[in-house]
Amino acid sequence: MTNLFEEIQPVVYRDGKVFFLDQTVLPEETRWVEVDSVETCRDAIKRLVVRGAPAIGIAAAFGMLVASRLAPKNSFEEYYSYMKNAGDNLVTARPTAVNLSWALKRVDKKILGSRCKPPREIDGIVEKEAMDIQKEDEEVCRSIGVNGQEIFDRAGIEGGFTVLTHCNAGALATGKYGTALAPIYVARERGLYVKVFVDETRPLLQGSRLTAYELYKSGVDVTVITDGMAASVMGKGWIDACIVGCDRMAANGDAANKIGTYGVALLAKAHNIPFYIACPLSTVDMDTRCGSDIEIEERDSLEVAAIAGKRTVPKGVKVYNPAFDVTPHELISGIITENGIIRPPYAKALTELL
Amino acid sequence: MTNLFEEIQPVVYRDGKVFFLDQTVLPEETRWVEVDSVETCRDAIKRLVVRGAPAIGIAAAFGMLVASRLAPKNSFEEYYSYMKNAGDNLVTARPTAVNLSWALKRVDKKILGSRCKPPREIDGIVEKEAMDIQKEDEEVCRSIGVNGQEIFDRAGIEGGFTVLTHCNAGALATGKYGTALAPIYVARERGLYVKVFVDETRPLLQGSRLTAYELYKSGVDVTVITDGMAASVMGKGWIDACIVGCDRMAANGDAANKIGTYGVALLAKAHNIPFYIACPLSTVDMDTRCGSDIEIEERDSLEVAAIAGKRTVPKGVKVYNPAFDVTPHELISGIITENGIIRPPYAKALTELL
Repeated sequence: MTNLFEEIQPVVYRDGKVFFLDQTVLPEETRWVEVDSVETCRDAIKRLVVRGAPAIGIAAAFGMLVASRLAPKNSFEEYYSYMKNAGDNLVTARPTAVNLSWALKRVDKKILGSRCKPPREIDGIVEKEAMDIQKEDEEVCRSIGVNGQEIFDRAGIEGGFTVLTHCNAGALATGKYGTALAPIYVARERGLYVKVFVDETRPLLQGSRLTAYELYKSGVDVTVITDGMAASVMGKGWIDACIVGCDRMAANGDAANKIGTYGVALLAKAHNIPFYIACPLSTVDMDTRCGSDIEIEERDSLEVAAIAGKRTVPKGVKVYNPAFDVTPHELISGIITENGIIRPPYAKALTELL
Repeated sequence: MTNLFEEIQPVVYRDGKVFFLDQTVLPEETRWVEVDSVETCRDAIKRLVVRGAPAIGIAAAFGMLVASRLAPKNSFEEYYSYMKNAGDNLVTARPTAVNLSWALKRVDKKILGSRCKPPREIDGIVEKEAMDIQKEDEEVCRSIGVNGQEIFDRAGIEGGFTVLTHCNAGALATGKYGTALAPIYVARERGLYVKVFVDETRPLLQGSRLTAYELYKSGVDVTVITDGMAASVMGKGWIDACIVGCDRMAANGDAANKIGTYGVALLAKAHNIPFYIACPLSTVDMDTRCGSDIEIEERDSLEVAAIAGKRTVPKGVKVYNPAFDVTPHELISGIITENGIIRPPYAKALTELL
């Protein structure tokens, strides 16, 4: 599988060098950015060369690895001062990604815990921590993928199984496998035939640009539709289940995810199609009681109003551009996590687990 | 109102000259194509400078008016032969638009009925027929608009009323007023405050490019959203009714319309929002029993896979691109026609009317 994933891994560490897959030029180009300085790393995160919360955390950790190579090695103070500065630099690359500060804190803690060691040795500890962060995320994603097999097995469809997904909750957003796409990759490893329909996901087209790209590169049978075609495809009886990712889940199971997800959930219900959220338990925020407590980011209207530099909305016309919507827990058939598939009632199940 | 509609009328006849509003360059440019030959007319219809079934019929009739000016006037035979040739030329400009051949047949009939008159006089008859076709369509659309007022009056909302629409069933597709947008224009004439949310309508973006353009030019409060945002906007309680057009209605009330309409209808139902189809009775095909008898055109995958010349779907990936979907009559709260709003059961109501 290593070769298969090489082109769809957001962060690759090879022969002591760090590379980010440039997701801004996908799918037209497969270009790798070599990260040889903290500035390159910060710039890459800022420009969305790497995106997806887990991938951003991994990228930042590897940014610290690059920094450690460049840090002065004469004393811990000098070394730490350089590294601290690097971390401060990276943490502001994206304001909202929790994984960014989480990963940087993990690395910082490791460095501080190694203050009695010579700086040259701490480099190795930073390297291990970055690799661990990536590996742990990969393991969580793989567990989600393995636990998701229940959906295909329960369905017991001999001639194949068709999933509809929205946006990109795939390998490109994580260490490997992704969340919503993990069950599909694991099914493929098992030799099951799982076909995927993917909403292009306007305005930023992560479905057509990224999900279609990584599934196609992995040999999965994938078909792109516009967001408005989902109802039609469900109505034809072509979809056996919907699986999407999640940006933040409330304690009652309400799930904030890419704009359009709520609509997919409603359409799935209207057609009696099971609708699953796939996410690591770290996505669940027990301090958020329910979906209405989640603040929804509104983004630049130009994301909707212009495509490839060409205006599609007349100048002066208002645009509403929320980045996320909230799917109420009642519409969710199950939450696929690294601990298994959680079924309703979610408030009880999540409280017991977390 | 004449001035207001000038920029959003697809076919304008002024000082003996025929102009088409070039809808291919909207909303970036407001450019008029002067139609001074049959070839210009044919080319404009072919290139979608004029689109929308009623507008295409009107455009073709005015193409015949231009032809009549150029036709030899020595004998009826020579005159008719020239005009017949012009009609044959225009009828193939778009293969599927019924209004195209319908309008050309109307003009042809008028010419044949005037064979005893001198050709110079027939020119005036052709001119009158073209103007009549446009005027009749305008009258039908205005009646739809007037009949649609019932929706706003019944709702009795003092502080304004908000409509969600999909695609473009507006003035730009008809003689004037449009179908789905006619109630909104008439409400505006009455001084009612009706606000509109419009789905951008991928893949061809008729919502953002055309509907937003004509509503904005007419001073209507319009906000563009991506198709995937409709559920979210409905969930917020911002929408009082959905009104869309129709490409073809079956005898039982099932309605084929731009892809995405079926999804809007399902989402409206989930939020208890009334969902209306606005269409002239000529759109009802009593020979089509139900929606499943309507063949759905599948269009070029590049409409989805590339935007403004830039690929959004990786090469090799499959795309499904149906142009229309069918909304079953059970999801339709009412059909707004020139004869009033038809309510269920539609099979009975339509049979009685037609």
